[in-house]
Amino acid sequence: MEQVVLEDVLARLRTAIETNDLTTASVIIEALRPADQADIFSDLDDEHQAALLPQMNPADAADIFEELYDEEAAEMAVQLPLSTLVRIVDEMEPDEAADLLDDLEAEQAEAVLARLEAAHEVKSLIDYPDDTAGGLMTSAFLALQRRWTAEESIEAIRAWHPDEETIYYLFVTDRLKRLVGVVNLRQLIVAYPKTRIMDIMEADVIYVSADTDQEVCADLMLRYDLLALPVVDNNRTVLGVITVDDLVDVIQNEASEDIQRLGGVEPLDRAYLDTSIWRITRKRIGWLLLLFFTATLTGWVMDAFSAQVQAMVALTIFIPLLIGTGGNAGSQTTATIIRAMAVGDIEWRDVWLVWLHEVGIGLIMGSAMAVIAFLLALTWVSTFNLAFTVAISILAIVLWATSAGSLLPLIAARLKIDPTVVSGPVMSTLVDATGLFIYFNIARYILGV
Amino acid sequence: MEQVVLEDVLARLRTAIETNDLTTASVIIEALRPADQADIFSDLDDEHQAALLPQMNPADAADIFEELYDEEAAEMAVQLPLSTLVRIVDEMEPDEAADLLDDLEAEQAEAVLARLEAAHEVKSLIDYPDDTAGGLMTSAFLALQRRWTAEESIEAIRAWHPDEETIYYLFVTDRLKRLVGVVNLRQLIVAYPKTRIMDIMEADVIYVSADTDQEVCADLMLRYDLLALPVVDNNRTVLGVITVDDLVDVIQNEASEDIQRLGGVEPLDRAYLDTSIWRITRKRIGWLLLLFFTATLTGWVMDAFSAQVQAMVALTIFIPLLIGTGGNAGSQTTATIIRAMAVGDIEWRDVWLVWLHEVGIGLIMGSAMAVIAFLLALTWVSTFNLAFTVAISILAIVLWATSAGSLLPLIAARLKIDPTVVSGPVMSTLVDATGLFIYFNIARYILGV
Repeated sequence: MEQVVLEDVLARLRTAIETNDLTTASVIIEALRPADQADIFSDLDDEHQAALLPQMNPADAADIFEELYDEEAAEMAVQLPLSTLVRIVDEMEPDEAADLLDDLEAEQAEAVLARLEAAHEVKSLIDYPDDTAGGLMTSAFLALQRRWTAEESIEAIRAWHPDEETIYYLFVTDRLKRLVGVVNLRQLIVAYPKTRIMDIMEADVIYVSADTDQEVCADLMLRYDLLALPVVDNNRTVLGVITVDDLVDVIQNEASEDIQRLGGVEPLDRAYLDTSIWRITRKRIGWLLLLFFTATLTGWVMDAFSAQVQAMVALTIFIPLLIGTGGNAGSQTTATIIRAMAVGDIEWRDVWLVWLHEVGIGLIMGSAMAVIAFLLALTWVSTFNLAFTVAISILAIVLWATSAGSLLPLIAARLKIDPTVVSGPVMSTLVDATGLFIYFNIARYILGV
Repeated sequence: MEQVVLEDVLARLRTAIETNDLTTASVIIEALRPADQADIFSDLDDEHQAALLPQMNPADAADIFEELYDEEAAEMAVQLPLSTLVRIVDEMEPDEAADLLDDLEAEQAEAVLARLEAAHEVKSLIDYPDDTAGGLMTSAFLALQRRWTAEESIEAIRAWHPDEETIYYLFVTDRLKRLVGVVNLRQLIVAYPKTRIMDIMEADVIYVSADTDQEVCADLMLRYDLLALPVVDNNRTVLGVITVDDLVDVIQNEASEDIQRLGGVEPLDRAYLDTSIWRITRKRIGWLLLLFFTATLTGWVMDAFSAQVQAMVALTIFIPLLIGTGGNAGSQTTATIIRAMAVGDIEWRDVWLVWLHEVGIGLIMGSAMAVIAFLLALTWVSTFNLAFTVAISILAIVLWATSAGSLLPLIAARLKIDPTVVSGPVMSTLVDATGLFIYFNIARYILGV
């Protein structure tokens, strides 16, 4: 239903822009919520976007910029007159503004920075990489003093008139601006008005440094249910705060990157249909070629055993089935292990326990599959020995696949490699070649070919 | 570093319990944060857990129960004396308490319910399925009246002394308890004390009904950056509130379920190492067998073309390479498409655009792979025609895999099937059989075998 409504709005908006009625167009788009504004805006043609933006309220335009993919926002910024761009960036959250300026040409970024009202806030954030605590944090936060009362603190907050995202946790600092505690807004409100902050604050604060990886920050916030996480320097001076809305973006992005890496592609950094065919191809072909060259191992194995294949062509009937089942069993295992690692259920010191677990699972599944494969093979080739070869091979391949599937992600993580890299397609490709090798060796032993 | 510290704590805790010094043990565990308490607690043996719980502060025990996996919590609850269990459940959030009681035997759940202080709050939540808005929401929330002032509202909040998670958004109701607006705590604090709620509230509230799927709730909260989402009945009477901490759990669970489904396994519902080998096997073997029977299609194809294989055994060398590459190209495509669907970039009406996109990508990647495969095949078999067959086949298979990989997830979603189901292993298995069919037919045409 909502979709239909948004499409109506889009149609009205397009008509307004085409008839050059930009005031009406601004009214139409400004009536929407930020996320809907960004969606509708993205659906407009480039020239319509460029015509509309300078007419819009800068605060709404800033909301749109914050919701767009980073690259789309940068492309849009390039097309705007400097004065319009400066007005919009001034309305953005400092952390979002810094991300945007970081994506612009150095010259344009400097021109904008020179004219910004809150230039130093943005400047202090611009040097941190996007995927670290420094890149996520906002420098707009309020620090309370230990000796203030609850009443005075609420007055200070009222005077400060803060943005929504930074208000729920308030950090307490000493005279040297070092972090000494945290108090949340609920505690402030519920407290007796004359209570001193030092008497209600939690002194045991969880904090990170600016170079902490964003995934570590997200894990801490998730684990301890934090709505905000302070970022400090070596002296425990507060540099900024990461808020829960940034966290949610990180979790979603990391999950969506994991899903793409599990499929063997580099993550896209903008909307699918706005990404050119060439660009998507570049994100995929590297992996596809790497997997292809790894898969040529299967050709070498086939070649090495060509005498056997010549002697007994019936062996080949089972090749796709056997290596496919091995790949599937391996992918299942890596998916379970990667997820268990992600939620912190297992880590490197559990490696032998995990492996024993998967050997047990491989034995049970492999045995069941062996019985079924044996019966199936008998109906196909009616040669007892060949059916027996297939059955033993499937047991061995499944066992090998669950073992490799459990060990590889843990080893990768130990070597500081993202474990999603050794899953899905990589797993299948490795098991293909080794599975063939296992199959032909068992065939040689049992069938004597 | 933290890991080492927690291991020290665990060792001290074990010693205390073994020497029957349960007071010290309680002090040790109660000094930790809830997430760490739950981790340490899970590492204890069953009898140690059962000995420790009745000695602990019920509020801390309740925190542990909330952090444990649902099944672990239920198993623990069964072992506790009724009076201990009631004291703990009384300290849990109503939504978490309802989830726990739902997992107990009906008899035990009723016995606990009968003795609970806030029995009706929990009872009203217990009937909603876990994965709906009703199952996620908490019934502990404060509703403001339109005519109250900011000052009166803050007084009401102070008197209510609420739990952290429900305070940041306050819902405004009319005399019939129908939802008419929302105001956040920041607005209340920043407002002039005599301002009436009706003058600062946002009247255009986003809400859901109790049977709304949890993923829809999460998407709404993410899209509109909500810290809380009200759940209403047909008359717009507020039943409860979903808070951001529940949302974060949902996103993480959905992502981790997606990752597991992409690997072809049913998600586990408890910690990996605590899940028995049999149980994990049950979560996997269904899929593995289904994929195995689908993969027998490859056997039928091999069998149908056995005359060709007999005539030219060299054809078989390339089989694993060709079907592997097809499976990889298909998995890459589904991963991209599923992610783009998840973040709302594409939907059913874009199906032709998406398909054209992937045909373009398939043509580029397939052509590049064809050239490389041709050169490689020449070095292996030195037969121009066979190398040409392999090259044309890889182009056709990659093109087919990107097409199928783009259409299947969209069709699945259209048919209300989870699109992750048609990805990864399912994709590879489908492309294996069809890829073979394509290869043999091209071979027949070019080589005349």
